Amino acid sequence: MKVQKVGPRAKLRSSHHSPHNHQILEKGYSETVNSGPGDPGRPSLRELVAEGSFLTGDGLVAYDRNHSLTPRINRDTHIIKVNGSVKKELNLNIKDLEALPQHEVVAALQCAGNRRHTMRTLQKEVVGINWLDGAAMNCSWRGPRVRDVLALAGVESPKGGKQTHVGFNCRSVPCEDDEYFGSSITLDAAMSDEKEVILALQRNGKTLSPRFGFPVRMIAPGIIGARATKWLDEITVQGEESQNVYQRRDYKILPETVQTKDDFLANDGAIWDTVPAMQETLINSVIAYPTQEETVTLDPDGMAEVKGYAIPGGYDGPVVNVQVSGDGGKSWVTAEFVGTATKFSWAIWKARVKLERGEKRFIWSRATDAGGNTQPEMSAWNIRGVGYNGYGDARDLTVL
Amino acid sequence: MKVQKVGPRAKLRSSHHSPHNHQILEKGYSETVNSGPGDPGRPSLRELVAEGSFLTGDGLVAYDRNHSLTPRINRDTHIIKVNGSVKKELNLNIKDLEALPQHEVVAALQCAGNRRHTMRTLQKEVVGINWLDGAAMNCSWRGPRVRDVLALAGVESPKGGKQTHVGFNCRSVPCEDDEYFGSSITLDAAMSDEKEVILALQRNGKTLSPRFGFPVRMIAPGIIGARATKWLDEITVQGEESQNVYQRRDYKILPETVQTKDDFLANDGAIWDTVPAMQETLINSVIAYPTQEETVTLDPDGMAEVKGYAIPGGYDGPVVNVQVSGDGGKSWVTAEFVGTATKFSWAIWKARVKLERGEKRFIWSRATDAGGNTQPEMSAWNIRGVGYNGYGDARDLTVL
Repeated sequence: MKVQKVGPRAKLRSSHHSPHNHQILEKGYSETVNSGPGDPGRPSLRELVAEGSFLTGDGLVAYDRNHSLTPRINRDTHIIKVNGSVKKELNLNIKDLEALPQHEVVAALQCAGNRRHTMRTLQKEVVGINWLDGAAMNCSWRGPRVRDVLALAGVESPKGGKQTHVGFNCRSVPCEDDEYFGSSITLDAAMSDEKEVILALQRNGKTLSPRFGFPVRMIAPGIIGARATKWLDEITVQGEESQNVYQRRDYKILPETVQTKDDFLANDGAIWDTVPAMQETLINSVIAYPTQEETVTLDPDGMAEVKGYAIPGGYDGPVVNVQVSGDGGKSWVTAEFVGTATKFSWAIWKARVKLERGEKRFIWSRATDAGGNTQPEMSAWNIRGVGYNGYGDARDLTVL
Repeated sequence: MKVQKVGPRAKLRSSHHSPHNHQILEKGYSETVNSGPGDPGRPSLRELVAEGSFLTGDGLVAYDRNHSLTPRINRDTHIIKVNGSVKKELNLNIKDLEALPQHEVVAALQCAGNRRHTMRTLQKEVVGINWLDGAAMNCSWRGPRVRDVLALAGVESPKGGKQTHVGFNCRSVPCEDDEYFGSSITLDAAMSDEKEVILALQRNGKTLSPRFGFPVRMIAPGIIGARATKWLDEITVQGEESQNVYQRRDYKILPETVQTKDDFLANDGAIWDTVPAMQETLINSVIAYPTQEETVTLDPDGMAEVKGYAIPGGYDGPVVNVQVSGDGGKSWVTAEFVGTATKFSWAIWKARVKLERGEKRFIWSRATDAGGNTQPEMSAWNIRGVGYNGYGDARDLTVL
């Protein structure tokens, strides 16, 4: 199998600054969205944690992040190629996928750049879409397991491979920064019992809508959203990870010594090769009620209601504990869960916390998962502003 | 395959309080050790980070934790059974293991209870051996890969299995709390390219010594030491995790609602079934110079030398960054590494940090790995005091 190398088109451009900078508008594509609760004018974070919202609905609530326009695909003629190091190459259509055993998993999906705004605000400027705390959703996903598809094709050991990966590509739509969107995860993860990697045909019991990847996307619970290729049309078993820009250059936690965009572009981006591609999500929590700069009126006991969501780290879910502090970490109260968190789902939590009246007050949240991962007060700054998982916070509150 | 259930002998006794409470002393066993830098009279933590100590040596430097006495095994007659859901049961001897391709991996091995003393001191009393910060070592391990052994036997899907595990047992020595010591990891982990699970015949280029598991032990980089069965004599492919006490009852991060030993023993220990067995290690760092209650003399610039080690979380290594604070987290300096950290190794680090003169001063360390995991200031308290990975700290310093 020939692995596509990062070519001249694959320079990392400044396309992450704005959610609306797409120049590609071709027949058959609708305009891309790349939006969510973090965008001005988009629905607020608190819709994500509203009553009955354990599964994130449609419409403007769920975040959307693409690196291409949204293709309109004919499900009757759509083909998913299975190739690379396999005994038998396959051309599957949607009916073939439906004929396999269907597997359902509730999983949170989070953009690696969720909470970038917090990193930028509390630490230092970063390069990327200014996501607030809402670039996450929690859905029920349903479709065949990737390993059942690979079993049809028969996996062989790639020649000269260092580590076997399974690539997930959408070749039918050109991207901002590469000829197509591609991602990969390890073969281990794809074949795993516990990791439940699927080709999702449904979200929350309904056929996927175009913005969520119709007719089929990959879903890898515990792994960042950027690997969950939408409009999937190729699965490739290969001896190294995807060479796509979004695997090899974007979505990496660069060292703090990389301070400017020039630094990471220096020497044709040599720094990227020294840093692994992000895969597993990090333990995280955010506060939705109240949010930044709000006025909070205390109840007669001097308490405020606080509510948010929490996401476990990688395969270490479920979230088992969320604590909330109204006094800068001197004391913490344990939140209660609204509903039940599962291994890959988020937890929606609420608590009552004591606050002092005045200006510039703040509240922190801190989650722990079953694997013992606990949020740090602040995570390491990186130029791309990815992987922020410091304490959830609501800042600059006016408390009456 | 018949999975042994937790039987009447398998009650969790109070055997973790003392490192020297063993009643079993039978012919053929030497006295067990269960000791390390955390014990009174044992060598100090700083031997672990001494010059040239990137690989932890023999003698009293390396920690030792067994749940049985140390058996003296004849390597010429020792047999490792491979059974369970396999096409062909095997009886392998050490020469058979030596005849397989040998794989070498440098990996830190850490007791789940490392730093228990810190949890007990900073948070609340816990039940378990009073490990300080030295229940960890970093060694080069060499032996055949577990997956190569399993390939000889041929893995089959266990009947009625929920998740396939590979059990690693030592049946030749009775344990404190069960009839034998057993552990398991997922088949996924055992078969993984990247996880490098081996049957170690050598440590640091030499035949294992009895206290490290002679003639063969399992080593699973990224996973807590309790799964790394010493004196291995059985490998079992099974449809659920090991039913051994040390998998099913010990080494779990219980919820904070479990406040006393009675709580976790209530209803015949029903709480244990609701909590997953610990597997992956958590990002961690400790300070070896200075340590608790020491007197530190500042240099003319008002700076102190600080040195320690850091261990990455699970498969998310290497450690990429260690920061040190002498002012309670208001400012952090970046440590430099002594030598090079690899994916599963620890990092030995040092830094110079500004300190104020006076009593009761303290220093913090905080590590981040390539997966973006950062230590929390404090991790969640749990009755067994396992998985502590709050900031490394040197407390109660007198600074001159």
